[in-house]
Amino acid sequence: MDDEQLHAMRHSLAHITAAAIQRIWPDAKFGVGPVVENGFYYDIDLGEKKISEANFAKIEKAMRGIIDYGDNFEKFEMPIDQAIEWAKENNQPYKEELLNDLKRSGTTVAKDLDVDELGLAAGADTAVENVSFYQNGKFVDLCRGPHVANTKDVGVFKLMRVAGAYWRGKETNPQMQRLYGVAFETQEQLDTYLELLEQAKLRDHRKLGKELDLYTVSNLVGAGLPLFTPRGTVLRDIMAQYSNQLRQAHGFNKVFTPHITKTALYEASGHWAKFGDELFLVTSQETDDNFALKPMNCPHHTQIYASRPRSYKDMPIRYLETTTDYRDEKTGELGGLNRVRSLTQDDSHVFCRDDQIEAEINGLLASARELYGKIGMQLRVRLSYRDEGEGYLGEASLWESAQAQLKAAVIANELNYFEQEGEAAFYGPKIDFMATDALGREHQVATVQLDFVQPQRFGLTYTDADSQSRQPVMIHCALLGSIERFLSVFIEHTGGWFPLWAAPEQVRILTINDTVLDYVEEIEAVLRSTVLMQPVKFNELRFTRDDRNESLGKKIREATSWKIPVQLIVGPQDKESREVSVRTQSGEEKVSLDRLTDYLMSM
Amino acid sequence: MDDEQLHAMRHSLAHITAAAIQRIWPDAKFGVGPVVENGFYYDIDLGEKKISEANFAKIEKAMRGIIDYGDNFEKFEMPIDQAIEWAKENNQPYKEELLNDLKRSGTTVAKDLDVDELGLAAGADTAVENVSFYQNGKFVDLCRGPHVANTKDVGVFKLMRVAGAYWRGKETNPQMQRLYGVAFETQEQLDTYLELLEQAKLRDHRKLGKELDLYTVSNLVGAGLPLFTPRGTVLRDIMAQYSNQLRQAHGFNKVFTPHITKTALYEASGHWAKFGDELFLVTSQETDDNFALKPMNCPHHTQIYASRPRSYKDMPIRYLETTTDYRDEKTGELGGLNRVRSLTQDDSHVFCRDDQIEAEINGLLASARELYGKIGMQLRVRLSYRDEGEGYLGEASLWESAQAQLKAAVIANELNYFEQEGEAAFYGPKIDFMATDALGREHQVATVQLDFVQPQRFGLTYTDADSQSRQPVMIHCALLGSIERFLSVFIEHTGGWFPLWAAPEQVRILTINDTVLDYVEEIEAVLRSTVLMQPVKFNELRFTRDDRNESLGKKIREATSWKIPVQLIVGPQDKESREVSVRTQSGEEKVSLDRLTDYLMSM
Repeated sequence: MDDEQLHAMRHSLAHITAAAIQRIWPDAKFGVGPVVENGFYYDIDLGEKKISEANFAKIEKAMRGIIDYGDNFEKFEMPIDQAIEWAKENNQPYKEELLNDLKRSGTTVAKDLDVDELGLAAGADTAVENVSFYQNGKFVDLCRGPHVANTKDVGVFKLMRVAGAYWRGKETNPQMQRLYGVAFETQEQLDTYLELLEQAKLRDHRKLGKELDLYTVSNLVGAGLPLFTPRGTVLRDIMAQYSNQLRQAHGFNKVFTPHITKTALYEASGHWAKFGDELFLVTSQETDDNFALKPMNCPHHTQIYASRPRSYKDMPIRYLETTTDYRDEKTGELGGLNRVRSLTQDDSHVFCRDDQIEAEINGLLASARELYGKIGMQLRVRLSYRDEGEGYLGEASLWESAQAQLKAAVIANELNYFEQEGEAAFYGPKIDFMATDALGREHQVATVQLDFVQPQRFGLTYTDADSQSRQPVMIHCALLGSIERFLSVFIEHTGGWFPLWAAPEQVRILTINDTVLDYVEEIEAVLRSTVLMQPVKFNELRFTRDDRNESLGKKIREATSWKIPVQLIVGPQDKESREVSVRTQSGEEKVSLDRLTDYLMSM
Repeated sequence: MDDEQLHAMRHSLAHITAAAIQRIWPDAKFGVGPVVENGFYYDIDLGEKKISEANFAKIEKAMRGIIDYGDNFEKFEMPIDQAIEWAKENNQPYKEELLNDLKRSGTTVAKDLDVDELGLAAGADTAVENVSFYQNGKFVDLCRGPHVANTKDVGVFKLMRVAGAYWRGKETNPQMQRLYGVAFETQEQLDTYLELLEQAKLRDHRKLGKELDLYTVSNLVGAGLPLFTPRGTVLRDIMAQYSNQLRQAHGFNKVFTPHITKTALYEASGHWAKFGDELFLVTSQETDDNFALKPMNCPHHTQIYASRPRSYKDMPIRYLETTTDYRDEKTGELGGLNRVRSLTQDDSHVFCRDDQIEAEINGLLASARELYGKIGMQLRVRLSYRDEGEGYLGEASLWESAQAQLKAAVIANELNYFEQEGEAAFYGPKIDFMATDALGREHQVATVQLDFVQPQRFGLTYTDADSQSRQPVMIHCALLGSIERFLSVFIEHTGGWFPLWAAPEQVRILTINDTVLDYVEEIEAVLRSTVLMQPVKFNELRFTRDDRNESLGKKIREATSWKIPVQLIVGPQDKESREVSVRTQSGEEKVSLDRLTDYLMSM
């Protein structure tokens, strides 16, 4: 089944949902009912009546009745004024409002609603005359289509949840009830999806974040400002260290810039005009200075570049800074680590000559490929180019050469890629990375962006071989992106079973009884001298000991609930034979103490 | 000569300065003339006339005349109203103002001026009746004394500089001229001091910061917000790493907290009431939340502690965070790294039981002792205790026990210490560290503070062995303090010749000619595999190569101007014998390539 058919199926199910609702509650007023990822929803106004999960069985039964009855989806058109009359007669004020908007201007409606949902006749984008309807059985809905031929052709579905939603997303509008369903061609696909959902629930990073003591949120500190515990901080640091190490191997040097700046910096960079109202503003009580919290680091790094004269021989100059940026977000949008106000970026900037772009991009792509490969996430990249439109800054020839260099680097790195014209930023082309997690979900992660504009705005130059002053190109890159968001993905991808090198607590020694305590000390001496070198260098082992007077079973259960990758079980026999029982997710085996360091280093 | 005599000498020189000024410019009006470190100043109002360094010879000549003449300093008293008349008659409006203030209330004056400077008769703190004067020759000055017996007894002096100073430090008051001099008992002491001053000028961290490319300041970012270049960032990171490593060895774990918080956190901690107007306030444009930039980290760390139930078995819990705090400062006070708005603290907090205080303090003192010992700075500590006064929070018995534990730890660490009652914070006793630099100047650096109050305010508890809920004690500690300020001291202490382990660029290879290039690659392979382990672990070598077609002399001069501790000079003969010429501050010697790693690791 192709995407178009699946879309028609899900869209038809939205109509069937509304038809079922109308059969149960004849006074129901309907908003829109579009297709979404894996399913569909319909916005419904039932006045005082609230739909709950307890009603789902009844609604689903009515839907199955409609499906089994096997009506065809019939399309017909009518003039828009007649359609408005239809809406009035049927007491559908939301449809009436949409039709009136549509009559005034097709595009106004398109701005806040998916135009597919409307009965806008094909091709009628500018002059709206006729609108189309679909009918199945007695149920009639304003709709552009397409639909499946017959209600029997809708595959399998399940109602999932109901949530409040303001009409057209505006808080001043009436609140409706949004009823969500999922739908697939086969029962097997639906089951797989529901299983995945179950998995995702278990792996929810907010749940695991609490269970594994990775971060906390304090009402006194505020929403979207997570505080990281020792365990969570190990994860942050080890990932940042990995990301930095990869780039340091390509000649990047760490720099440090404060978290506030005079707004003058953003006026110079042009960010003030564009993003001024998304900034946290900072007031000095001692001076008249106007400050803001930095939402990005590029303008700051230009000031370090600009602090000395630069020669073509110095280029590329590569700065790296893991630092926390601040973005003002509505409280309602904040939850877990996915969307936060404090985002720590593993940010880097290259200042280079035009002819150095490809080699620089190459190094960055190789770094991204290694990092995501190591954590077992498939990468796919989008090459975003300019189109023929206006508003792109920088010379066309530079764009052309830069885009070709980006593509060459992507191909050299054997990355799975696709190209999109018109997706570039106005200041340069870019590469976006999408990583697929263990549940098959795709996340936007790293990005590499060229920038022809900031070097110009800040008047950055270098002296070229011919003694001429030239403007460098800037390359922005974050491999992890926001470390908070990356961790939300990483936690769910691994389900909290982090690879040995990244685990906050890597090894726990579990004693069978107290006769082995002297031997445990020997084991600890070995662990203390064990330093992992891959993929992060100089990664000293993080281990603990559980020598409580408790049963081994209890100790194993606890260590397993903490998802500690290596449990070393030590009993009198192990002491005798100078071994340890190594328990990992893949089983248990005996390892001699002499070999323990090598064993751990090759895991 | 004891301190009191030296003080009298310098104070007498202040009078002699004023007498000389009056001799040259009879209309001079005088403010105050106190003793300061190494000398004295006098505030003078000469109307339009500006004193410049060109006048110093003339003033000094007049002063020498007065000294050689050998008048005695004669003390006399008069009733305060008569003194006010004296000031009027002699056209000394500033003295008149002081006397009027003094008449109203001795304490008002004491608040903004050193009371020694005033002719307040001894013991007359509450009811001012008589004031004292000193006269030498014709010059009479309102003064409490004491002075030397005769103008001949003032040792040697030198006028140093003149600077603008508002009367009584208030910007709305008239601006006076502050004429500074230094004075010592012997010419040798003065010469030593002047030599030290010359040294200090050469080592000024603002000068070296620029020359060695350690940090920069941008007008667009703002005053007091230094941006650290790659070289400066190496220094920051290596020092923070050292400081962290010392504490991690004592069981500290890193945590991470954002740089902003709702002001509610500081209302709960009590900081809002005390320091609310010294904070940078942060405005959210999306929500009504009131935020502030954090000026300290303790309240934040309490929230991590409070995120889970704690048992006596978990204690002590030790958090470590190197993070940037923000303090609002007047622009005029900002310069170099000494006083900044963005201060990065190597902050740590212990939450422990009462009986664990001594062991915890012991570990922290040992860390401070090792760190300052390693960089060659002598430490002296002040033990600050409570006195009998009111306002100390926490039980008296806890204070007593805690103070005894602090002292025991100081003694166990064989630290040079002194005790001061009444210097404790209201929330607990503390230890302040003073470190002496290579020029003999003492700087306040690390601090260790006990805190009985924040655990109470935040309701922190742990479950004790008897199942009772108890309140932990908090121990604040920063070893470096503000890293920015520490670096200003460290740069001047070393004069930019950082020890090998800390130097941004540790080794530079200087080639004599191109025939050695293949051999240089072998040397680089050796350097790449060299990892210093002391005092900072896993410290990979930072090296560069100068193989330009320039003379060796020029290469050495450049490497020396960058103060690179190890220069490896490589010529055809070195290649032949598989050696390198190692050039350090202590000389030059041949080292075989096989031994190079060991040589560097033992430096």
